[in-house]
Amino acid sequence: MADFTALRIKPQRFKADFETLAAIGSTEDGGVDRPSLSEAHLAARAWFRQRAARDGLTVAVDSAGNHSAVLPAVALDTPHLLLGSHLDSVPHGGRFDGALGVAAALEVLSTIKDAGLQLPISLEAIDFTDEEGTLVGLLGSAALVGRLTPGEIQSPRGGRQSLLAGLQRAALSEEGLFLARRDPASLAGYIELHIEQGPRLARSQTPVGVVTAIVGIASYRLIFHGRANHAGTTPMNERHDAGLGAASFMLAAHRLVVESFPDCTVNTGLLQLEPGAYNIIPGQANLALEFRSADDKEFEQLENALLALARQQADQFGLEFEANFLNRHAPAPMSVSMQQAIGQAAHCLELGYQAMPSGAGHDGQNLAHVCPAGMIFIPSQDGISHSPREFSAWQDCINGANLLLQSALAFTFEHYRP
Amino acid sequence: MADFTALRIKPQRFKADFETLAAIGSTEDGGVDRPSLSEAHLAARAWFRQRAARDGLTVAVDSAGNHSAVLPAVALDTPHLLLGSHLDSVPHGGRFDGALGVAAALEVLSTIKDAGLQLPISLEAIDFTDEEGTLVGLLGSAALVGRLTPGEIQSPRGGRQSLLAGLQRAALSEEGLFLARRDPASLAGYIELHIEQGPRLARSQTPVGVVTAIVGIASYRLIFHGRANHAGTTPMNERHDAGLGAASFMLAAHRLVVESFPDCTVNTGLLQLEPGAYNIIPGQANLALEFRSADDKEFEQLENALLALARQQADQFGLEFEANFLNRHAPAPMSVSMQQAIGQAAHCLELGYQAMPSGAGHDGQNLAHVCPAGMIFIPSQDGISHSPREFSAWQDCINGANLLLQSALAFTFEHYRP
Repeated sequence: MADFTALRIKPQRFKADFETLAAIGSTEDGGVDRPSLSEAHLAARAWFRQRAARDGLTVAVDSAGNHSAVLPAVALDTPHLLLGSHLDSVPHGGRFDGALGVAAALEVLSTIKDAGLQLPISLEAIDFTDEEGTLVGLLGSAALVGRLTPGEIQSPRGGRQSLLAGLQRAALSEEGLFLARRDPASLAGYIELHIEQGPRLARSQTPVGVVTAIVGIASYRLIFHGRANHAGTTPMNERHDAGLGAASFMLAAHRLVVESFPDCTVNTGLLQLEPGAYNIIPGQANLALEFRSADDKEFEQLENALLALARQQADQFGLEFEANFLNRHAPAPMSVSMQQAIGQAAHCLELGYQAMPSGAGHDGQNLAHVCPAGMIFIPSQDGISHSPREFSAWQDCINGANLLLQSALAFTFEHYRP
Repeated sequence: MADFTALRIKPQRFKADFETLAAIGSTEDGGVDRPSLSEAHLAARAWFRQRAARDGLTVAVDSAGNHSAVLPAVALDTPHLLLGSHLDSVPHGGRFDGALGVAAALEVLSTIKDAGLQLPISLEAIDFTDEEGTLVGLLGSAALVGRLTPGEIQSPRGGRQSLLAGLQRAALSEEGLFLARRDPASLAGYIELHIEQGPRLARSQTPVGVVTAIVGIASYRLIFHGRANHAGTTPMNERHDAGLGAASFMLAAHRLVVESFPDCTVNTGLLQLEPGAYNIIPGQANLALEFRSADDKEFEQLENALLALARQQADQFGLEFEANFLNRHAPAPMSVSMQQAIGQAAHCLELGYQAMPSGAGHDGQNLAHVCPAGMIFIPSQDGISHSPREFSAWQDCINGANLLLQSALAFTFEHYRP
């Protein structure tokens, strides 16, 4: 045990696994298309079961479809330290997002097993169902921690029909989703290796990032009501153009965040003008608003400021205004003990690291409610993700997998001395 | 002939005709739904043929589907003075737009026939095909004056399938559309009675408007190219958000017109953000731009200014820019002699009038290329049109029909003294 810090993953095996996964649902442009519970995603999960069994790991699939490979401790009934990510992708996504973390988790377990290292707790590589949200979003981890709500299943963001069809393809059921909750006492912690999906690490040439918090995300559908009218005969100064109110808010919201909330982000990704014709003044504008913050208090201030701004812009253009709340995930700070374990492991591995929030949502935000959770980032070339052009250098992937290995060991031996 | 200025239409017959038309394709909210060459539109045209025949007018239907009722002069081979409008409506439109002018034209012919008044030229009440553009726009009048282009038929704004289906329903053919051209020497002139579709006459309590010009209309599809990216992980200052460029142009274009082109209008009625998701920064924005001017030179200046402004906004937001020209109808001044005839008739009828451009397109802009063309407007309550709520007071409709009658007679006796 004294020498566990010298342990390293096997790059050849890890690379073979990664490449096998990249070929499942691969697209011509070098990406993968594995939306949650699609045939391609289920094929990737079949590979997961084979791969785990091949190396003598115990395979388990829960009633939410989460796939696990377990390296059990000698003692029975020990808690599990989860290492994981997800095998689903956004439609026409990249090969690194999710799959890297799953392949690395499996590699970590095989490495420890090969070394004959006996751990005081069980290690579990886990592939969560529907992280990306083609169906619901963070579905498997929400089920596992018991935070799934019936509303999410009744009105899933990907549509009810898609969800039911996916569950059927995977031989899962709605009822089963609510039976997948695990006892928090059985969970020792959670660590995920993931690509950054942003440009910071690549730009600062820092090999790894230690995530401090996963941002909170909230979204609203903002509706500006004006008056549809003839675009040629209505005098310019008598229009109630809903499109102009929405446009003015889009610009003002971005200005607000840049100037007053520099650690936050805002996006207006979708705008529908109705009735939507060249020759009709827009009578209604439906705007998709999403904003993120890593800090609870700032998150609330930002929400209030954005809604007040929208109301003010509507007034200015003579419009009625309506804000339909869609959903909110609170900011999730990562566990301090897990950040310390990762930092200590990076130090051992002589990897420079940077503490940083995650601007994207991850399963770790659900796990953080029930156990110590942490995340490791590696650089994303040009910060590109959710795209076939998503890329991380192979050495960065190896660094990330070794850091996952050493962080798991450091955390385990720090908190579960045998 | 000395006494023709005392002649008046018969309000009861006119009202019965108007109400019969309003019932064809009527909607529950008091409007009509008669898109061009739909079953409801064809039913209105069947009524036109019956109504014309009932009063002993000669019925003719040309190969573009234009419906005519003729009151022939005694002499053979005289030119025709056309009085008309259209029986098609926008989807879920109002009962006045178009139908009023057709009913009034029929009433004028019946009134003159009843009076036994012999005219030196033939009078023709005409219902043009597809004025509103559910299929092509100003289709029948373009065919009649020989300005229809094969391109308009190949890529019609309502879609090629809709056009072919409509032609088939009406037993018309594509070839026929190009055979409907009439010899300009056979056209003495054109006068149309129409609702204003704007608020000016109603607001100034002026009973009628004499149209000076029909505005030119041009439209473009503007495309702003940015970079689609993750809305949470891409730093705010590194985004190339195509939606913001489009939004900024929308606001700037409206400001430009209000401040520098006060006689013009601009509309941005449709905006598509792509890929169009809450959590993806818009990589492309497709914006529908339409602008109008009654003056040739100003029209060109406005076009140049708007395109330069769009390019400038794209630059400012780090976007590529592309302007796809869609179509342009030049401003069409109404004939001075026709404006004089209408003004003189309004004077005889003791109707106050206002000279004004038409901010909407009309078949008169096609007719103006081959013969003296003029238009009469009556007030639109609150300026509402293309809506079931479109309304004009019945006394204003009667005033309009009498003015159409007296204008036709004034023009005829001024230019074709027997």
